[in-house]
Amino acid sequence: MKPPPHATKGEETRCAILDRATSMASQVGLTGLTIGMLANDLALSKSGLFGHFQSKDALHVQILEAAAARFVNEVVRPALAVPRGEPRLRALFEGWLSWSQSRSMPGGCLFVTAAVELDDRPGPARDRLVSLQKDWLEVLANVARSGQTEKHFRLDLDPEQLAHDIYAVMLGFHHSSRLLGDPRAPQRAHAGFESLLAGARRADARRRK
Amino acid sequence: MKPPPHATKGEETRCAILDRATSMASQVGLTGLTIGMLANDLALSKSGLFGHFQSKDALHVQILEAAAARFVNEVVRPALAVPRGEPRLRALFEGWLSWSQSRSMPGGCLFVTAAVELDDRPGPARDRLVSLQKDWLEVLANVARSGQTEKHFRLDLDPEQLAHDIYAVMLGFHHSSRLLGDPRAPQRAHAGFESLLAGARRADARRRK
Repeated sequence: MKPPPHATKGEETRCAILDRATSMASQVGLTGLTIGMLANDLALSKSGLFGHFQSKDALHVQILEAAAARFVNEVVRPALAVPRGEPRLRALFEGWLSWSQSRSMPGGCLFVTAAVELDDRPGPARDRLVSLQKDWLEVLANVARSGQTEKHFRLDLDPEQLAHDIYAVMLGFHHSSRLLGDPRAPQRAHAGFESLLAGARRADARRRK
Repeated sequence: MKPPPHATKGEETRCAILDRATSMASQVGLTGLTIGMLANDLALSKSGLFGHFQSKDALHVQILEAAAARFVNEVVRPALAVPRGEPRLRALFEGWLSWSQSRSMPGGCLFVTAAVELDDRPGPARDRLVSLQKDWLEVLANVARSGQTEKHFRLDLDPEQLAHDIYAVMLGFHHSSRLLGDPRAPQRAHAGFESLLAGARRADARRRK
């Protein structure tokens, strides 16, 4: 997470802490990450960290916010430079795959980890995560919808269903790469995504392929 | 988990404890479940529970084993009574959906929760889980393969890919039902599964539908 321009020293420190916290949380989970662990890792005092984040709940929400800001920068924004419809949907998918395999996310996509971790833990972090995940599904559905106006996809396609199905492919990728250590995980994810696109295409677009 | 016939009193107690532990772990995760919490919930002494399970690692492995035995009883065995190929694959999928929504699994499918929780935690519980998940994917792939010999599915279908894709639909169901609380989660899962089957069918089987 880049600090905003003209950031104060305190803001810069906060951004650096959140970057490290995001990486650690991708491995141990949000609730597995304590302020003590983070202090230890960064060689900062616990009381200093409490000064930045006040509470564990506030830390979790801010980690999610920082990760979401990075996600927009690294995945969503570059895809907006790609033509609407199918090419943009593909850019989002490829961007997500790179994001979830990046060095800054050593435990895989933080949002996938947090989704399972927080689903039975009501609170501000869960609320923020639900809202972020709905935003992401909406981005996917809107781009799927643009594939209909661009005449790439069938008009009777349900864009929300396609968004849901693409997200399921991403969850499958996390499972097969992170848990099973399957070397074919990226290939499986690509094949799943391509089948979804093939099912979404108009008959005339399918013949052109 | 039913105790074996002629089970001793100790074995019966162990089965009852594992049943309760499985339900709790589906909500708080395996690593979130401590022997202290379990003792408290069951009004048993911590030392008595340690007598049954020796260590937290052993408890986790035994919870996974107990859940797997129940899974075979509730999902796999009934499906084996259904004709091979597509009908059996459908029975496995429907069985899994019921299992993950059953009252004994209040936090959704334990295996989905454990998969994300343990992916970065090497140890005996992770090893056991990986092996169980590979078994389950193999069951799905074998039934997909029987759909080829039964002439339901295309001969150029990749049965492992179909198994992987079906599992991704299940992960998507867990996400949309448990985290997002989407009332259309079952409908989305069914639609995803039906699209996979439609893509797997032979052209002549497709025309018959």
